[in-house]
Amino acid sequence: MYQIYGINGCDALLSSDIFKIKKLFVDDSRFLKLKAKMNKSHHKKIDTAIVLDRKSFLNKFPSKHTQGIVAHFEGNVELDANDAFEKIGQRKRACLVLLDGVTDPQNFGQIIRTCECAGVDGVVISKHKSAGVTSAVLQVSQGAFVSLPIYIAGNLSQFIRKLKKNNFWVVGIENSINASPWYEVDFNCNTAIVLGSEGTGISRLVGENCDITTTIPMKGSINSLNVSATVPVVLFERLRQISH
Amino acid sequence: MYQIYGINGCDALLSSDIFKIKKLFVDDSRFLKLKAKMNKSHHKKIDTAIVLDRKSFLNKFPSKHTQGIVAHFEGNVELDANDAFEKIGQRKRACLVLLDGVTDPQNFGQIIRTCECAGVDGVVISKHKSAGVTSAVLQVSQGAFVSLPIYIAGNLSQFIRKLKKNNFWVVGIENSINASPWYEVDFNCNTAIVLGSEGTGISRLVGENCDITTTIPMKGSINSLNVSATVPVVLFERLRQISH
Repeated sequence: MYQIYGINGCDALLSSDIFKIKKLFVDDSRFLKLKAKMNKSHHKKIDTAIVLDRKSFLNKFPSKHTQGIVAHFEGNVELDANDAFEKIGQRKRACLVLLDGVTDPQNFGQIIRTCECAGVDGVVISKHKSAGVTSAVLQVSQGAFVSLPIYIAGNLSQFIRKLKKNNFWVVGIENSINASPWYEVDFNCNTAIVLGSEGTGISRLVGENCDITTTIPMKGSINSLNVSATVPVVLFERLRQISH
Repeated sequence: MYQIYGINGCDALLSSDIFKIKKLFVDDSRFLKLKAKMNKSHHKKIDTAIVLDRKSFLNKFPSKHTQGIVAHFEGNVELDANDAFEKIGQRKRACLVLLDGVTDPQNFGQIIRTCECAGVDGVVISKHKSAGVTSAVLQVSQGAFVSLPIYIAGNLSQFIRKLKKNNFWVVGIENSINASPWYEVDFNCNTAIVLGSEGTGISRLVGENCDITTTIPMKGSINSLNVSATVPVVLFERLRQISH
């Protein structure tokens, strides 16, 4: 069972056929405001919510950030990476984002959100090295997990080999390496974009399996772009290229 | 007095002439490891740190994320926006990022970090509408505040008019508007990039003062790129253009 709060996340959940809301809690004092801000076709479902008076709601959910709405839900947020190919099918210029050991839930959630906005076909994480797909991660994603598949690969290197057999061009992104800059990579094809962990980057074996590595040269002195800021740079450069 | 922890932030602070570390606390059990990971020219200063045994350190700083080092420091993290012009001087293709009401400390800190990595000349926030420059914000910036000036403007619209008089091209970024995409903006000049608040975007008056507004068209269904993900998209598109 997962829990998320807030208008965006709960609105996305209410539109989903995949996830099943078990309980929806609403702060009575915000009931009408919430309905005004949420998708009209969800109003019936909101009417069946567990409506609590303000004090009881805050007692149960003391966080300042709930916006007066909390959902408890079930569903499979972790899909098998081997099923990605069938789901993608013959889509042209498909794109998957592979995370080789991103461990910070804030970063992981932000990356899911960015990937959804950038029209990515899925995020793939390694089973043993990544932050788990927890309520905290789903919360940060602001409902993006509802429409963006999150795939789990038992072994990321093996999965990359499978990607290549399926005509994916595999691009590793590394900080501070001697490589061509990100905008020189051709994204006009099926692309898998590989990012490493916050501390140590892409692991050796995974890196060796990439077709190409690229970098985002920096202009400051700290030289450490956060992985959750690296992802939008690369994904929207991809969109820039394929929209031409 | 501010407090930050961790290797990156403390290392950046130790190299600064502007900020003055009043106390530096180190976990004895990590002392040698820390020195190995930090700039060698700082080792003397680290030797004068207050070294606590592991238990006392954790008692004083129970967070899991300190990496065994905490700095208390003083210095002016909020500069007067009117001083930005003198500091920038005759620099060609200068760039300032203006935040019109970013209120989330996590977003604010991440934006400072991204701006530093992208070679921006400063971040400008409005005095009354933004998240304050707190220890939490500086922490998230991972030491970027040491080399990136943070300017405070009493009135952002007035400051934008001043920017225009000083030959800055003022670009407002808005979600979901009918405008040309971000990569069609010409960044080969002095540029001020204006971003709005997480909830409501750029305020009317500030928007009217921009020379142009642009947008990042999205491809998903949630259509809400976080402001801390919008900033890297725009700033690295600027770097792509000016590196050609």
